[in-house]
Amino acid sequence: MSDRPHTPVLDRVQTPSDMKGLTDRELRQLADELRAETISAVSETGGHLGAGLGVVEMTVALHAVFDAPKDKIIWDVSHQCYPHKILTGRRDRIRTLRQEGGLSGFTKRSESPYDPFGAAHSSTSISAALGFAVARDLGGEGGDAIAIIGDGSMSAGMAYEAMNNAGHLGKRMIVILNDNEMSIAPPTGAMSSYLSRLYAGEPFQEFKAAAKGAVSLLPEPFREGAKRAKDVLKHMTVGGTLFEELGFSYLGPIDGHDMEQLLSVLRTVKARADGPILIHAITKKGKGYAPAEFADDKGHATAKFDVVTGKQKKAPSNAPSYTSVFSDTLCKLAADDSKICAVTAAMPDGTGLSRFMERYTSRCFDVGIAEQHAVTFSAGLAAGGMRPFCALYSTFLQRGYDQVVHDVAIQRLPVRFAIDRAGLVGADGATHAGSFDVAYLANLPGFVVMAAADEAELVRMVATAAAHDEGPIAFRFPRGEGVGVEMPENPETLEIGKGRMIREGARVAILSFGTRLQEAEKACEALAAKGIAPTLADARFAKPLDRDMILDLARSHEALITVEEGAIGGFGSHVAQLLADEGVFDTGLKFRSMVLPDTFIDQASPKAMYDIAGMNAEHIEAKVLDVLGVAVMEKRA
Amino acid sequence: MSDRPHTPVLDRVQTPSDMKGLTDRELRQLADELRAETISAVSETGGHLGAGLGVVEMTVALHAVFDAPKDKIIWDVSHQCYPHKILTGRRDRIRTLRQEGGLSGFTKRSESPYDPFGAAHSSTSISAALGFAVARDLGGEGGDAIAIIGDGSMSAGMAYEAMNNAGHLGKRMIVILNDNEMSIAPPTGAMSSYLSRLYAGEPFQEFKAAAKGAVSLLPEPFREGAKRAKDVLKHMTVGGTLFEELGFSYLGPIDGHDMEQLLSVLRTVKARADGPILIHAITKKGKGYAPAEFADDKGHATAKFDVVTGKQKKAPSNAPSYTSVFSDTLCKLAADDSKICAVTAAMPDGTGLSRFMERYTSRCFDVGIAEQHAVTFSAGLAAGGMRPFCALYSTFLQRGYDQVVHDVAIQRLPVRFAIDRAGLVGADGATHAGSFDVAYLANLPGFVVMAAADEAELVRMVATAAAHDEGPIAFRFPRGEGVGVEMPENPETLEIGKGRMIREGARVAILSFGTRLQEAEKACEALAAKGIAPTLADARFAKPLDRDMILDLARSHEALITVEEGAIGGFGSHVAQLLADEGVFDTGLKFRSMVLPDTFIDQASPKAMYDIAGMNAEHIEAKVLDVLGVAVMEKRA
Repeated sequence: MSDRPHTPVLDRVQTPSDMKGLTDRELRQLADELRAETISAVSETGGHLGAGLGVVEMTVALHAVFDAPKDKIIWDVSHQCYPHKILTGRRDRIRTLRQEGGLSGFTKRSESPYDPFGAAHSSTSISAALGFAVARDLGGEGGDAIAIIGDGSMSAGMAYEAMNNAGHLGKRMIVILNDNEMSIAPPTGAMSSYLSRLYAGEPFQEFKAAAKGAVSLLPEPFREGAKRAKDVLKHMTVGGTLFEELGFSYLGPIDGHDMEQLLSVLRTVKARADGPILIHAITKKGKGYAPAEFADDKGHATAKFDVVTGKQKKAPSNAPSYTSVFSDTLCKLAADDSKICAVTAAMPDGTGLSRFMERYTSRCFDVGIAEQHAVTFSAGLAAGGMRPFCALYSTFLQRGYDQVVHDVAIQRLPVRFAIDRAGLVGADGATHAGSFDVAYLANLPGFVVMAAADEAELVRMVATAAAHDEGPIAFRFPRGEGVGVEMPENPETLEIGKGRMIREGARVAILSFGTRLQEAEKACEALAAKGIAPTLADARFAKPLDRDMILDLARSHEALITVEEGAIGGFGSHVAQLLADEGVFDTGLKFRSMVLPDTFIDQASPKAMYDIAGMNAEHIEAKVLDVLGVAVMEKRA
Repeated sequence: MSDRPHTPVLDRVQTPSDMKGLTDRELRQLADELRAETISAVSETGGHLGAGLGVVEMTVALHAVFDAPKDKIIWDVSHQCYPHKILTGRRDRIRTLRQEGGLSGFTKRSESPYDPFGAAHSSTSISAALGFAVARDLGGEGGDAIAIIGDGSMSAGMAYEAMNNAGHLGKRMIVILNDNEMSIAPPTGAMSSYLSRLYAGEPFQEFKAAAKGAVSLLPEPFREGAKRAKDVLKHMTVGGTLFEELGFSYLGPIDGHDMEQLLSVLRTVKARADGPILIHAITKKGKGYAPAEFADDKGHATAKFDVVTGKQKKAPSNAPSYTSVFSDTLCKLAADDSKICAVTAAMPDGTGLSRFMERYTSRCFDVGIAEQHAVTFSAGLAAGGMRPFCALYSTFLQRGYDQVVHDVAIQRLPVRFAIDRAGLVGADGATHAGSFDVAYLANLPGFVVMAAADEAELVRMVATAAAHDEGPIAFRFPRGEGVGVEMPENPETLEIGKGRMIREGARVAILSFGTRLQEAEKACEALAAKGIAPTLADARFAKPLDRDMILDLARSHEALITVEEGAIGGFGSHVAQLLADEGVFDTGLKFRSMVLPDTFIDQASPKAMYDIAGMNAEHIEAKVLDVLGVAVMEKRA
């Protein structure tokens, strides 16, 4: 454990109400202590560090000026919420962040009344805040609605949709644009350049005086009651036309680390706002902790680390990550095929495309946090004759679902979907689980849907996707390391819709789709010790199904068990439909489909999450015993 | 049949290449003839009229100046594409629009090389055009990429995402903002007000002269080769800061019905553009046909009509539409419950909420074409203590899927989803089919998913949803009229997860989810004549399933057949999973799940589409006979 920081002011704050008596000077100190406590906590737990450090002063100022939980403070994405958690009754559990049974790494309604709207995906906060503001004005609960959203998150269409609606409705609400010129990766897009120009044109040093002036001047325009606060606030602005055109009063840019400025601006806004207001605050991701501030990713996410040196304590890896295997294979294929290109939605590192981007700059596109556009842009690339790989996490592909249906599937365009983080993902918890993609893709006519059982299979699937010009194709793979299998020298392609036999056995057949194959193998070995030798097959394809293989397995065994890292409606459901259609059930088959359970599973290690889901080796073993009636007999004996 | 218009110039145009020799004066006449031909055709077929009439001049000008299909002309939504179809080799089939075997009412890649990117959902065109532009610059096929997008479509986030990316990439591409101040309903939102201000500030009468001047001046700035076309084009602008901030050169507003102006602007842009350009054209929806121009909806969609009077030839209705039943019930419930509110995404008429909007103005929200925001805004309303009904078509709910998962389901917020146009929808074809919602909702933990079997059931489900504060709940219902059943006086609520028996029979049980119940009843009657009396039940809930009823049915019959208006992965898959888990298949059950087939079905009447899908009464009857082995025997006899 690191030495805990000395935090005399913070020690007096259990909830934000304890901050109300503090002087501005004490609030300044509280921020310093909160920063130290955040660094100390994350050094023990790992997690998102840089974003939280960037909003320490903002967090203190918000809780000093506003009255949570009556006022709704909504953190966009919310990986910057650790300081907020420390100030809102969760300091005693802050060193359990992202661990099983501990605090979530994100805001969460079920965790605290101070988290009025949970998040983890980006760009939802303005919509949610508008909902609270409207509900309040319709006589519902709540006071002010405040969304704090990063500049990266502003590239997502839904933030624009919400601004457009909020500007139209004109309700009192506050959006704080936390502009750190950095989301996970440096943001791209025209909006980002626009924000830079706003900042470059009028640095907040000049504004600072103006803001102070405006605050002291405030009473005057209201003396006659004729002017609206909006007009006053507009006098304070030095840019922001774009936001004003969308109906917001623009206020900024301000220095998001200057407590005095933050407090005066927030107090003014609280006292005077009568419509939607956008406060443009400039902050530094990683602020106040050198190892984060000077890191390439500004300390975005970190393992446990040494507070003094900033050195991270990562476990050595035994096998390449699936992400890097995807990336390496794509780079290799692109060397010989100039039509291969790649699209990421603000995740060049997360999806492994940064390597591809370096080598094939003109063929790699970071479109910002904009999955809808990413999918249809990829469809346009395909229609224009390219071979686009659209690389997204499973959970984020949900953002582009209509585009997958409408622009890709219906038009049969050969977009390749590289779906990372399939299945349960660990510390990021339920919001990041890749549970639904197989269900929502495999029922789309003409789609090919694959899951890699190991990293060598992933190589083959990337190659198969590259070669598949006939229509849309997706391959999914999990977070984390591969299993250490030998890698194919030259990535050969797979025959579409053909699975493979892993081991021949009797009585019961296990049909795996994805990386549960390793767990199934372990289960087979454990069963062998009990004299049971299941057949094991890797389906490879959820669509098209390997009909022959599956019907053979069903007809030559008394039981068939499917296993997949996904929710109901996916692979197992397609197998069940085939078996029903073919009349296999008519005469009896012990069929079981092991899918993710009907619950959202909180953060834990992936292994622990699959334990909760009942999908590890022992569960597969138990399922086999149960279906064969062995467990029951053992129990009776 | 109406008298066909006299069209001497149009008669000479089979494809756009035939337009290249026409004088500007002849192009002007061509536009007039094209308008007359469009009106004449739609009077025979019905369909989207107003939007097409608004872009007649634009269509002629685009095909006169650009070279389709090498240049990619991409119509957003594309219900305005009828004039384009007439000019691109499809005039001979234009009177088959939206009919079975006829032309699609939208652009469609498989229909013509002049349709480089199909559409039907809104706001995809800029993403697609950017894809083509990038592919071209990477050595792919194609010339210019041109997106024509309405002002209503600009409220969707994905249009903004695409602009943001296009402005950043700086590729040559053209976006024509077709500003008719009218999408389907009058557009709402701050962007819409912004566009109005642009237009109000500088009417195009003044610009007209400026534009002419700019064209004649064009060569001069290029004499020295130092200035970019962008700069020249900027001189022509009179506003558009917002678009310029996003990296586009803004050009306009121009009069979208002034052929001379259109031709000169497009020729200039074609000759000089070297980056993304936005042309802001003001048009009138319904232009040139008084009955459309003066209609409330500007002739958005029409039945067959009389050309002279504009009077529509609608068949008399026998029962209220599902949409109006939903709307009436919601209005009734809202009278006694001030927490009920409603959200629509630019479809107050389509979803029936216009009536609700009139009576409860402050509780009804048209957020624009912005389904992502619609869902999360509804979640915010629910978190703020309201009872929001989020009313969307099934196919458009796909746009908000991630928000349904992340903001509604994971947080268990009681958002009520009123899902209209569930199942196959008729003339709008595959892009509008509501095929996937049951699959993608019923696997979300904590969701309640219902389907109404008739309009009386819909009343009960609206009431059930209103009363359900425990978590998210959805009810789906089809396009069109109800079946004429007696309506409940006071809408009673249903017990969550309980189905109902319709008729008790033997041997085979049919378990229906949704309005196939009527077809199943017909099938039962036909079977009765053959001495077979199936049991028939209405599941009502795909989630939670009525386990007791389903297991009872399975165990007391030799066969169980599920029927639903949806794709695989939905209701039938959940039933199969239950039966497998409970070991019902172990000893044999003739189980069949009738779902939509694995194809996208082109436009036809809903009845004809369900014929193609194999889901009408005779197919259910045949399935029963088949599963009982009766049909086979009959064939043999």
